[in-house]
Amino acid sequence: MKNKIAKRMEGLKGSVIRAIVDAANKPGIISFANGNPSSETFPIKELAAISSQCLADDCVKVLQYGTAHGYAPLIEILKERLSVKFNLDFKNNALTIVSGATQACDLISKIFLDENDLVITEEPSYASCFNIFRIYGAGLKGVKINEDGIDINELSILLAQEKGVKMLYTIPSFANPTGATASMEKRKELYALAQKHDFFIFEDDPYSELRYHGDPVFPIKSLDIDGRVFYVGSLSKVIAPSMRIGFVVYDKSYMPLFNIAKQTTDVHSNLLAQHIAYNYIAHYNFEKHISFCRQVYRQRCSFMSELLRKHLHPSVELSSPDGGLFIMMLLPSGYDSVEFAMKALDRGVACVPDSGFMIDPDKSSNMVRLCYSTATQKEIEAGVKILGALSYELFG
Amino acid sequence: MKNKIAKRMEGLKGSVIRAIVDAANKPGIISFANGNPSSETFPIKELAAISSQCLADDCVKVLQYGTAHGYAPLIEILKERLSVKFNLDFKNNALTIVSGATQACDLISKIFLDENDLVITEEPSYASCFNIFRIYGAGLKGVKINEDGIDINELSILLAQEKGVKMLYTIPSFANPTGATASMEKRKELYALAQKHDFFIFEDDPYSELRYHGDPVFPIKSLDIDGRVFYVGSLSKVIAPSMRIGFVVYDKSYMPLFNIAKQTTDVHSNLLAQHIAYNYIAHYNFEKHISFCRQVYRQRCSFMSELLRKHLHPSVELSSPDGGLFIMMLLPSGYDSVEFAMKALDRGVACVPDSGFMIDPDKSSNMVRLCYSTATQKEIEAGVKILGALSYELFG
Repeated sequence: MKNKIAKRMEGLKGSVIRAIVDAANKPGIISFANGNPSSETFPIKELAAISSQCLADDCVKVLQYGTAHGYAPLIEILKERLSVKFNLDFKNNALTIVSGATQACDLISKIFLDENDLVITEEPSYASCFNIFRIYGAGLKGVKINEDGIDINELSILLAQEKGVKMLYTIPSFANPTGATASMEKRKELYALAQKHDFFIFEDDPYSELRYHGDPVFPIKSLDIDGRVFYVGSLSKVIAPSMRIGFVVYDKSYMPLFNIAKQTTDVHSNLLAQHIAYNYIAHYNFEKHISFCRQVYRQRCSFMSELLRKHLHPSVELSSPDGGLFIMMLLPSGYDSVEFAMKALDRGVACVPDSGFMIDPDKSSNMVRLCYSTATQKEIEAGVKILGALSYELFG
Repeated sequence: MKNKIAKRMEGLKGSVIRAIVDAANKPGIISFANGNPSSETFPIKELAAISSQCLADDCVKVLQYGTAHGYAPLIEILKERLSVKFNLDFKNNALTIVSGATQACDLISKIFLDENDLVITEEPSYASCFNIFRIYGAGLKGVKINEDGIDINELSILLAQEKGVKMLYTIPSFANPTGATASMEKRKELYALAQKHDFFIFEDDPYSELRYHGDPVFPIKSLDIDGRVFYVGSLSKVIAPSMRIGFVVYDKSYMPLFNIAKQTTDVHSNLLAQHIAYNYIAHYNFEKHISFCRQVYRQRCSFMSELLRKHLHPSVELSSPDGGLFIMMLLPSGYDSVEFAMKALDRGVACVPDSGFMIDPDKSSNMVRLCYSTATQKEIEAGVKILGALSYELFG
């Protein structure tokens, strides 16, 4: 049969993460690899009660076809919360419910990205979105990310060179994988550059609710006066990922486009999940639940950090995150993260090298991502000791 | 801001259906417009029981991230059912769970359709899929559909003229909107043409379980010996649409492509819905439930058909469907379906003209689709009388 596969699907490089995460799920492997939330944080009893309640009270509405835009009460309660807590403006913006933040990336790319548009991204960053941008024909350029977020100087130089920059992709709070958070000053600089060079900002914000140290910083979207920021949030880390409920906030003039893009992608998101999410947020103590999540991650992070400092060779640097799910190990410069991750995997510990977050997955440097959200205390103790022993062998 | 919207989204014509369906949801309007299943058929009690049971028994599995391919037990039970009832072969084929049949169309188009590929479709047919094919750059050509499915002669002539035909889109059982069902002979002719001219067949099959007269016909996929048929099914019409659970059956060599396409579209489908669907099919009497659905639609169809025959002007012809959700009215030739539908809407009855199912929505002929699944008996009686009176005014 003649060329069967669409060009857009060719040369999508499956990242090294996939292999490691697959291995991480094998029995006997201690996994610091996948970025799943801790199941401790799932409000199981409440969700069980709500789900049967929804189906009892409101069954036809819950089971019949819904609208592409989303379940209106969930939209309203999320808008209210985002305007109060994140200073977002819903006079000029609309909110659409999507099937997880990844779908927001798919819809935004489908609606806005043309063949040969350029997307600038922090690098390393969340590579699944890189593949989505590629599928819709965009080219990618990376900009270094520092402890306080994207490197503005490097970005400015790139913007001076590059024409046709359509969008910038950023995770400004507790970036994946570095854990970096951009200050409000940096967010303002970034927005000013977007205005000057006239590009969109895709603000991916799955983690900001999980801040357990320091003061919250308002999203870039809170600065948006000309409708160029897409703000994407998710309930995956604060309720449960399998519900696949995310949301995208965008200039309301684009609503017809988001509606037709959603209709032609999956018609609408699962309605039972939308009703459950609405009822949980409206009738249970959502803020209290979120602070419980923060407490869980604060404890796990400090527990793992202390063990790492104790057991790792002193030449290995560690990030000290204020939130999110990840600790970064910085190996002695020049040492390759992939080699370290593969050696660790041989000894039964899965962690992810920065190559899994690069535009070119064959490129890597000396960063390794450790996720502290899913392993037990015992596993963390055992796993860190193995990483420590490995570090002394390699760097001692 | 410079050209913001991707070319793929330009010139997507919102169909006249949308306007009519929106109007149909207004209070006081009797709707024969939207193709929703009857809420009578939703197994509400069972789903409520299962949902809380799932969350009680298996909470972490149900709430944590799942795999792109789908929930394994649901995949296995669907495979078993499809091999026994529909004669599908799972030695050579894989099944992926998707978020409704529309998502199967999105994924198939994403994976296989290139700019300027040609998709041939029955016309009139389900126009949302037309828009999905367009979004991925494909051109569309229509082939007339008769009472026994696509017109093979017209198709053969088109295939002799056209190069670069990549895929044929067909709803072989109870087509939307015509209700036509292709015989096994016709399915064999269609498959032979696909082999001769080397194109894919997209077999969209949301309705075949809803046959209430005559004998079932195996899917085209049951004839597929060289992996060129994508078979798409859905639980929307036999359990509940809001669950957004569909499935696609395809040559297993494509599984890595479906996995990466699904990962980069919405990661995976809602897991609670997949667990609910599995448990309902495995532990409740699914076959009995389906025959109940058939009975509901058989009764509604004959009830509405009798009234239509009684009240409509004799120059209006009616389809006599063996299943599905729709009756077609054929207006006297030359009379325009859009004009009729708009006049009917003015009098409080919503039905859909065939222009809503055309490649060019500005084109229409004399077919009007009536859906009998959601209106009450009283509404059907009142609505048909209004259509009858209108028909006598226009054609009497």
